[in-house]
Amino acid sequence: MTSSHIPRPRRVRALAATALTAGVLAVGVLAAPAAYAAQSDNGGAARDPGDSTAALRASIADGPAKNVILLIGDGMGDSEITVARNYQYGAGGKLPGIDALPLTGQYTTYSLYKDGANKGKPDYVPDSAATGSAWSTGTKTYDNAISVDIDGKPQATLLELARANGLRTGDVSTAEIQDATPAVEVAHVASRSCYGPETAACGDDALEKGGLGSISEQLLDARPDVTLGGGSTSFTQKAKAGAWKDKTLFDQASARGYQVVGDAAGLGGVTKADQDSPLLGLFTPGNFPTRYASTTATVGGADAAPVTCTPNPARLSTDLSLKALTNKAISLLDKPSGPGFFLQVEGASIDKRDHSADACGQIGETVDLDEAVRAALDFAEKDGNTLVIVTADHAHTSQIVDSTPPATLSTALTTADGTVMKVAYGTAAAGGSQQHTGTQLRIAGYGPGAANVVGLTDQSDTFFTIANALSLQRDVAALSAGAKVTLPDTTLAPGEPFELTLKGFNGDRQVTGVIESDPVDLPRTDVLGGSARIAGTAPTEFGAHTITITGAQSAKQVVLAVTVTADGEPAAGAGTGGGTGTGAAGGSGSAASAGLASTGSVIAPVLVAGLLLALVGYLLVSRARRRAARILVGEVTHS
Amino acid sequence: MTSSHIPRPRRVRALAATALTAGVLAVGVLAAPAAYAAQSDNGGAARDPGDSTAALRASIADGPAKNVILLIGDGMGDSEITVARNYQYGAGGKLPGIDALPLTGQYTTYSLYKDGANKGKPDYVPDSAATGSAWSTGTKTYDNAISVDIDGKPQATLLELARANGLRTGDVSTAEIQDATPAVEVAHVASRSCYGPETAACGDDALEKGGLGSISEQLLDARPDVTLGGGSTSFTQKAKAGAWKDKTLFDQASARGYQVVGDAAGLGGVTKADQDSPLLGLFTPGNFPTRYASTTATVGGADAAPVTCTPNPARLSTDLSLKALTNKAISLLDKPSGPGFFLQVEGASIDKRDHSADACGQIGETVDLDEAVRAALDFAEKDGNTLVIVTADHAHTSQIVDSTPPATLSTALTTADGTVMKVAYGTAAAGGSQQHTGTQLRIAGYGPGAANVVGLTDQSDTFFTIANALSLQRDVAALSAGAKVTLPDTTLAPGEPFELTLKGFNGDRQVTGVIESDPVDLPRTDVLGGSARIAGTAPTEFGAHTITITGAQSAKQVVLAVTVTADGEPAAGAGTGGGTGTGAAGGSGSAASAGLASTGSVIAPVLVAGLLLALVGYLLVSRARRRAARILVGEVTHS
Repeated sequence: MTSSHIPRPRRVRALAATALTAGVLAVGVLAAPAAYAAQSDNGGAARDPGDSTAALRASIADGPAKNVILLIGDGMGDSEITVARNYQYGAGGKLPGIDALPLTGQYTTYSLYKDGANKGKPDYVPDSAATGSAWSTGTKTYDNAISVDIDGKPQATLLELARANGLRTGDVSTAEIQDATPAVEVAHVASRSCYGPETAACGDDALEKGGLGSISEQLLDARPDVTLGGGSTSFTQKAKAGAWKDKTLFDQASARGYQVVGDAAGLGGVTKADQDSPLLGLFTPGNFPTRYASTTATVGGADAAPVTCTPNPARLSTDLSLKALTNKAISLLDKPSGPGFFLQVEGASIDKRDHSADACGQIGETVDLDEAVRAALDFAEKDGNTLVIVTADHAHTSQIVDSTPPATLSTALTTADGTVMKVAYGTAAAGGSQQHTGTQLRIAGYGPGAANVVGLTDQSDTFFTIANALSLQRDVAALSAGAKVTLPDTTLAPGEPFELTLKGFNGDRQVTGVIESDPVDLPRTDVLGGSARIAGTAPTEFGAHTITITGAQSAKQVVLAVTVTADGEPAAGAGTGGGTGTGAAGGSGSAASAGLASTGSVIAPVLVAGLLLALVGYLLVSRARRRAARILVGEVTHS
Repeated sequence: MTSSHIPRPRRVRALAATALTAGVLAVGVLAAPAAYAAQSDNGGAARDPGDSTAALRASIADGPAKNVILLIGDGMGDSEITVARNYQYGAGGKLPGIDALPLTGQYTTYSLYKDGANKGKPDYVPDSAATGSAWSTGTKTYDNAISVDIDGKPQATLLELARANGLRTGDVSTAEIQDATPAVEVAHVASRSCYGPETAACGDDALEKGGLGSISEQLLDARPDVTLGGGSTSFTQKAKAGAWKDKTLFDQASARGYQVVGDAAGLGGVTKADQDSPLLGLFTPGNFPTRYASTTATVGGADAAPVTCTPNPARLSTDLSLKALTNKAISLLDKPSGPGFFLQVEGASIDKRDHSADACGQIGETVDLDEAVRAALDFAEKDGNTLVIVTADHAHTSQIVDSTPPATLSTALTTADGTVMKVAYGTAAAGGSQQHTGTQLRIAGYGPGAANVVGLTDQSDTFFTIANALSLQRDVAALSAGAKVTLPDTTLAPGEPFELTLKGFNGDRQVTGVIESDPVDLPRTDVLGGSARIAGTAPTEFGAHTITITGAQSAKQVVLAVTVTADGEPAAGAGTGGGTGTGAAGGSGSAASAGLASTGSVIAPVLVAGLLLALVGYLLVSRARRRAARILVGEVTHS
């Protein structure tokens, strides 16, 4: 804004043509010093320079969803995703599955301290057991816990609840199926290393200690329609207690109706998997071999010649890749006109290779998971009613760095871009296990209910996101509230065989039973679709007895009154009786009538008789054993 | 499903009361072994167990937005966010600003190689210069570049474009205002360290080398309405060329109309900031002191007693906190009935303290930024037409670890939860600078157009997200296409003073001018709102001359034909003439008529005369100097 002239000699000003893009030249603007690339292509880096508001809006679908597929990259933090993308597709490329999910957010992953002064407070760096428990049960817990809370209480899992709600279920992993991530959906143990009945780590969870059994045994109890992974070794162990004592878990699985397969051919032959014949496919003794051969990071390693990842010769057939297993599980679970499904899929060894500072290993596993995500999305896009969620359990060590760190392990790789990426591992020494880290993680979704992953959530919210999407009734007791037990004839001769018919134990996977007053256990019995049949024999002592059936998960109790007479015939004045028991244990008269009301067809005089009989049974039980009050309902009809 | 009985002795089964929550007891379900916490509160960890689909849908607003506030946490990766949240609010807490943004995604941050065989290929770990350039210009570039591409071409920035589109603009940072992040909005230099005119690093960008000048000088050229930060030292340097040669930049700022303040009292006194009197507030010689006193990470440090962060005594008055500066900038820029604004706010020292392995330092800076985000959101929520975007430029080193890494630096902190968080720095040795890392980052948004941050984008997409939200015309040449220059009388006496009036140079921040054929430069002149006045004096040589005005940014040229006569009067047969020049330089007749048409009031005979005169001028110029063809328009009206 000064007005002084600055005279200059005559001279030719160079046309700064190189400072202009072709586009600018085409419209004929004369060059000037420092002209802008007014309409440049901006280097072509933008992934989507247009407005994606409408696309985002279109991607939001209200629940419920018919199906949910949850895919977990174990240890797949944002750094691990970026490492894999850079290597496999280039920095400006896209992972075809992971990067295609339209709805994205972050979630926190901290666990809780179990003991001491910090009990219940955050533990900032979680393990895969606590993190998996968080999404599978909605309950934060301590590192090492498999779907039990910090007090050791079992917490119902998404897979269990899905099954209890009549949905079909699947659990797929490239790890041993007993590893934390697949285990959290099917088991409840204090210590994640309680793999099989011969594992010392089981402690009080062992069957012989009165616990729920090892993870492998609880998996058989959980009875997903489809279970695919590694970890066959634990199934060669023998049960130490229970109905299958001294039998291997493989034998037990077969006895309980499982289709057991161990290779691609066997898997290929399976065309159906349901509660009658669930599929158990275990393809390796331990974890699956990785996609890429391992690389070894060393101190100063990123200064060495960059490497290119090579295939791992030990990798399983691509018929058993995570993508193939995901597709197989979907094909077995998807029933267009039937109930929906919940499927969890884990890419397990991103974490394991990161622990080992193995860059190619973790990259290959991320790519494998991504292929499975793509498969899930392909199904979901076609199906139109499937929620797909992709996330990780916790972050990990690997970092992309500019220069080789002086004191820690590193590797240099030549990427798809043709340039060098240096990956560093700084949380453990050579030979040690690189650590998980505590940063928040990416979570992404597609389909009905996926909006819930956007913004900041906690890992435990994912339980609710999925449970809500599937409209799951989460009250296990309510699911079995209408349970009934019937017995054709409630007057029995001493030692006479009988068979109970159970229906409506929807919240339960097993029931237990006891004949009293001299307690004799009935066999712990699998409940399929809320139903079961239990055979027993009458007590030898004459008089009034009860048969109590208890849902193992719901705590629902149904009590039948039976009478033992010398000839199995009713005493004078009473005809042969059939019995139906229903009832919510609870100890109040109103609860009793509520229980009766649920039978739906009660005749008043019969009700009185039933209540009297109930009172007799109640008093007997109260006298014999110290227990909380409960309601006993015996409905006797005269034939 | 076996039928064997398992007789047991009479015994009392313990009521597993401890395995039930109070809620379950209240509904009266009897305990059983392994009963589930059927209706537990799931540990209370969930952030939002309800369905947020409707809330997400409601948070999506179509652009355009009136205002955009872009807040950058330098080096604020997801790990740095989590470290700060854990420390300040607890792991289950929320950062009031950062965590409140409803729309979230990830973006990639890689830069490009400038030279050699890898030219144009991804460089996986970027610096703040390349990353800031990416969002400010939409163009990927090399580390060290301030808003120039890999070939050195200046790229128009969001702030420049916003100003060119008539919006108000602001640039706020806790760093030296010449630091990369604030610089990318206002300057174009090959090397980020070209802070001031006395900086050797400026090379060819120095004014005296014919460049655009140092970052500080270009900041004065860019003329944001509001500039607040540190870095006053560079403004004490003296220009080495140009109109303000040998004057300090502070003097230059004052001469060019800036309100210059240096403390909280001065800032408090500012009630208005606009193009006539823009605000330049520089409150420290260098970077702002941090909120918390520094901590020093050491090898094995996380095994020492955990620390609690303490206030930094050197911290500026809270009137100069990033939150306060953000609020001040907003209050000065916001015009309810006027044009909107673009404001960039940087929390700079998250990065700087992370480089120094200073956990408390980086935490305090993150908290400071978060407060600024909250302030921006408070405004945006009230305003209803403001897009707020919060992200970082690149990730950084700090990691939350479970155990103390053996070879790298670490610190233990006692958090708001009352538990210990271990933070590790593994990419440099003690005393070295911890490295940026290459992982993808969180980006989050609120308001019209914020949907564009969801999913996976590239940092360069953010340029388009913001430019689209503000409906910016990004073609700088088009913005000046209708520029006019007028001169009351085009016949001048030798050495006669004249004053040109410029209008419509909307795409430009400065214009240059030259009188020919014997070239004499007119002063490089600031353009405010597309307008300027330039004074000059006529050549001493008789005959036809031209005055060419060139938009410094648009390359728009307007040429006026003038005639110098002995007495400043037209030759016989021609009256005293006034001149108006318009025109897109380009060299075709149609462009000429298009240029004329834009004047809107041309009379046919005058048009013919003008075109003839234009041709004369054109031939003269073509003969005298080797240049690209251009259109010269001289419109002479007889008075």
